[in-house]
Amino acid sequence: MELRLGFIGFGNVARAFARILASRSSELARDFDLIVRTTAIATGSHGCIVSAEGLDLDLAVTTAESGGRLTALPGAIDADETTRVVAMCEADVLIETTPLNPIDGEPATEWIRKALLRRMSVVTANKGPIAFAYDELSALAREHGVSFRFEGTVMDGAPIFNLAEKCLPGVRIIALAGVLNSTTNYILTGMERGRSFEECIAEAKRMGVAEANADYDVDGWDAAVKIAALANVLMDANTNPRNVERRGIRYITSKDLEVASAAGAIVRLVARAEPLPSGLRLTVGPETVPISSPLGARGTTNALILRTDLMGEIAVIEADPGVEQTAYALLSDLINIHRDRKARGIIRRA
Amino acid sequence: MELRLGFIGFGNVARAFARILASRSSELARDFDLIVRTTAIATGSHGCIVSAEGLDLDLAVTTAESGGRLTALPGAIDADETTRVVAMCEADVLIETTPLNPIDGEPATEWIRKALLRRMSVVTANKGPIAFAYDELSALAREHGVSFRFEGTVMDGAPIFNLAEKCLPGVRIIALAGVLNSTTNYILTGMERGRSFEECIAEAKRMGVAEANADYDVDGWDAAVKIAALANVLMDANTNPRNVERRGIRYITSKDLEVASAAGAIVRLVARAEPLPSGLRLTVGPETVPISSPLGARGTTNALILRTDLMGEIAVIEADPGVEQTAYALLSDLINIHRDRKARGIIRRA
Repeated sequence: MELRLGFIGFGNVARAFARILASRSSELARDFDLIVRTTAIATGSHGCIVSAEGLDLDLAVTTAESGGRLTALPGAIDADETTRVVAMCEADVLIETTPLNPIDGEPATEWIRKALLRRMSVVTANKGPIAFAYDELSALAREHGVSFRFEGTVMDGAPIFNLAEKCLPGVRIIALAGVLNSTTNYILTGMERGRSFEECIAEAKRMGVAEANADYDVDGWDAAVKIAALANVLMDANTNPRNVERRGIRYITSKDLEVASAAGAIVRLVARAEPLPSGLRLTVGPETVPISSPLGARGTTNALILRTDLMGEIAVIEADPGVEQTAYALLSDLINIHRDRKARGIIRRA
Repeated sequence: MELRLGFIGFGNVARAFARILASRSSELARDFDLIVRTTAIATGSHGCIVSAEGLDLDLAVTTAESGGRLTALPGAIDADETTRVVAMCEADVLIETTPLNPIDGEPATEWIRKALLRRMSVVTANKGPIAFAYDELSALAREHGVSFRFEGTVMDGAPIFNLAEKCLPGVRIIALAGVLNSTTNYILTGMERGRSFEECIAEAKRMGVAEANADYDVDGWDAAVKIAALANVLMDANTNPRNVERRGIRYITSKDLEVASAAGAIVRLVARAEPLPSGLRLTVGPETVPISSPLGARGTTNALILRTDLMGEIAVIEADPGVEQTAYALLSDLINIHRDRKARGIIRRA
């Protein structure tokens, strides 16, 4: 059974996902009866193309990575820009992996909206649309009989949204606490080992942990977007990142870390969603946490604690995630959509 | 839509589950279209009864807890013994919660086998049958078109089996490492605080963490049964607890803990499943683990690390579980079975 895929964004994550599709194609066909055909690719700097017959995804990856233009691919029709790709492509599922805009989640939200209106399912690794427009987009998907999945938006491929949806039936999530930003955790872990903030941030950029501009991480924006996304999906918060009380780690000193260490603790940038009589309170800020807490994650490791009514506290820890884990999130979302379509009898023969 | 339940075993866990069913009955009806009717209860010391019309489950709980005999319940037919209950009861799902027999998993395995042969689905919180007979019982369930679920057998209600089944499609689990036994963890945590092994074990019994006979915990049998169960389900190991290389914590001294502590580490009873060229190696034994590891769990907290191919390492931590968490496992299994039956069109109107 065939699924037609369109790629909106074709950076590291999308290309790692394409590599998994290639390396696992026989297992996906055997275990899930899943065969994919790529019918659209929209990139920021390598062109935007569509092809009803299907594109050579492996060739697209190597072309983009060697700096070439995708418009040269066999069968490619030049679609000029992303918005046109979304409007004209014929796909069953769009894989949206454009960079986060933490101010309003655009233009990704608009692309996803348009795709859902065209009855294409959407998988996104971009947390902006979930943090700013989850209620609208999920309602739109329901109304149009398609799926909207986003496991990769928080903690990469570690199952968080799927855990709550599929493994905790009947459970209400009361509160959340997480270490959700790898860059700040990497910096704090480095500072604990005696290096300066500046040295650590430079190293994070060199190691590919941080982007060239790490301000969104350091000032807590990334974590704020993630806790808003989690609260929207898991706690019906209907909120957005602007409602998060946010402090970053810029003013944390080695002295702060020493004081914590002397008390058997460490400092972490913790994102929280806590119920108050006045409503849900969302915060991001440095906290002193016990060294033995799941929140005492080291390096780029992420952790999330879910406090629930029937199941007490569960924590999920993702050790040293990389781009492959985010790519796996896309795959798990794709398999889920494929299963749903099969269960609902939506069949397209390869 | 109604499900008829039979209880095989009616101890703390089964009664906590009965309390959740009572307290959440309106939510279960509203959110899952699930109404339960109890048609059988087999206990060790309060009698064994069946009733096609249905029994008053709340009254059964209070009767058992006040030391009464269930045969006095309105509508109850005396079935004399558990084996007869399994043979004669009319139920859609049997809830099996009898105590673990770590030597061969009997008689629970035989009861489950009989129930599946009678085309009743089975939910168990008893790890023996999973550790000793998973392949046979799961095949039997498939052949007879019924479900066999067991989330509560390891780490109580924390989703482990469901996580792998529902949230990690396409992922292969390569290795496991877990702190799976609350009693030994409670003892080691107490010894770290300067108390003796004997004091800690007495306290564990007083707090209800350990049974009157804690030897199965202390000598690593409980953890061995759990890692065998995990390996059977998650790694197709077709093994049993006798194949686990097992050492307990009986000979751990305060000195051992001090040496570990001086190195920033702690001692934990770790259960592992590790692939070797010669096959899967299962071990249970005390290990020195870094204080920041997910395996550095304190008190009764449990932790499991899954090493995978596509998703790297994920850890799940269950904080200070109690009988309510195991009871929730039964509920989540029941809801899953109910969903499956609905999806397959097996309908029984209340």
